Amino acid sequence: MIILGLDPGSARTGYGIIEKRRGSKLECITYGCITTPRSKSNPERLLFLEKELMVVLKRYQPDAAAVESLFFFKNLKTVMPVSEARGVILLTLARRKIPIYEFSPLQVKMAIAGYGRAEKKQVARMVKEILSLSEIPKPDDAADGLGMAIACSLTQRPA
Amino acid sequence: MIILGLDPGSARTGYGIIEKRRGSKLECITYGCITTPRSKSNPERLLFLEKELMVVLKRYQPDAAAVESLFFFKNLKTVMPVSEARGVILLTLARRKIPIYEFSPLQVKMAIAGYGRAEKKQVARMVKEILSLSEIPKPDDAADGLGMAIACSLTQRPA
Repeated sequence: MIILGLDPGSARTGYGIIEKRRGSKLECITYGCITTPRSKSNPERLLFLEKELMVVLKRYQPDAAAVESLFFFKNLKTVMPVSEARGVILLTLARRKIPIYEFSPLQVKMAIAGYGRAEKKQVARMVKEILSLSEIPKPDDAADGLGMAIACSLTQRPA
Repeated sequence: MIILGLDPGSARTGYGIIEKRRGSKLECITYGCITTPRSKSNPERLLFLEKELMVVLKRYQPDAAAVESLFFFKNLKTVMPVSEARGVILLTLARRKIPIYEFSPLQVKMAIAGYGRAEKKQVARMVKEILSLSEIPKPDDAADGLGMAIACSLTQRPA
């Protein structure tokens, strides 16, 4: 089962793709970050995000997607652009009929580090351990994408 | 010049289409509301919204679109789903290369009723007057869509 994890943002959307096989360890397939050009308008950036996400979906054909949900948020200024990007991501996944699972940052921290107050760096280190990576995935957004995929793998049975 | 006005929402997106011709009054072409099925999941509702908006765009071929922007908001619970719907709307318009103009509810009230504290009903009555409609457009979301289109027409020259 191929799982795509996504950490949505209007400027940067991190993603991580892992494979879960019955009776074997989780495997990291790839990770990265979709960075939309600052020079473009907000609607053009959303269009760019959709196109790049489509490339990822076509190449890796995920069976499930995990998307970060914002149940609570600290910064009122970012909630609108992040939600707009989330809307585009949910739409693009729904169009390809990919089952979507949503996890809050707290749920991901609980799943990966065992407690909800874990620091970002600590979660990234655990992601490295769980996937047996040679180094901590960069940038943070990509590590968050992988974390999202791992959290999803713990709740989903392999196909 | 055909102008589409949109009042985004995850459950209901109001729209209004008007025509602005040099030297003549604004004319109402149509108005309505895209209501997404409650029975569907959030991503499926976004997909429904995109499809229905595409139908409107293909049928009426607007030259410009005015979309409500949320600079401030009262209800924290609605800002996320409304922004997700906004993301889908901006994406769909950008894909068809339709120029997008954004107006806050305050700007629309100022443009139509002359002051920012005008009530919803008052704005709807002014929309009826300006477009010489036989009755106040219903539902409210559709009236808001028309209001958005009128506000846009006041800032855009006819093509």
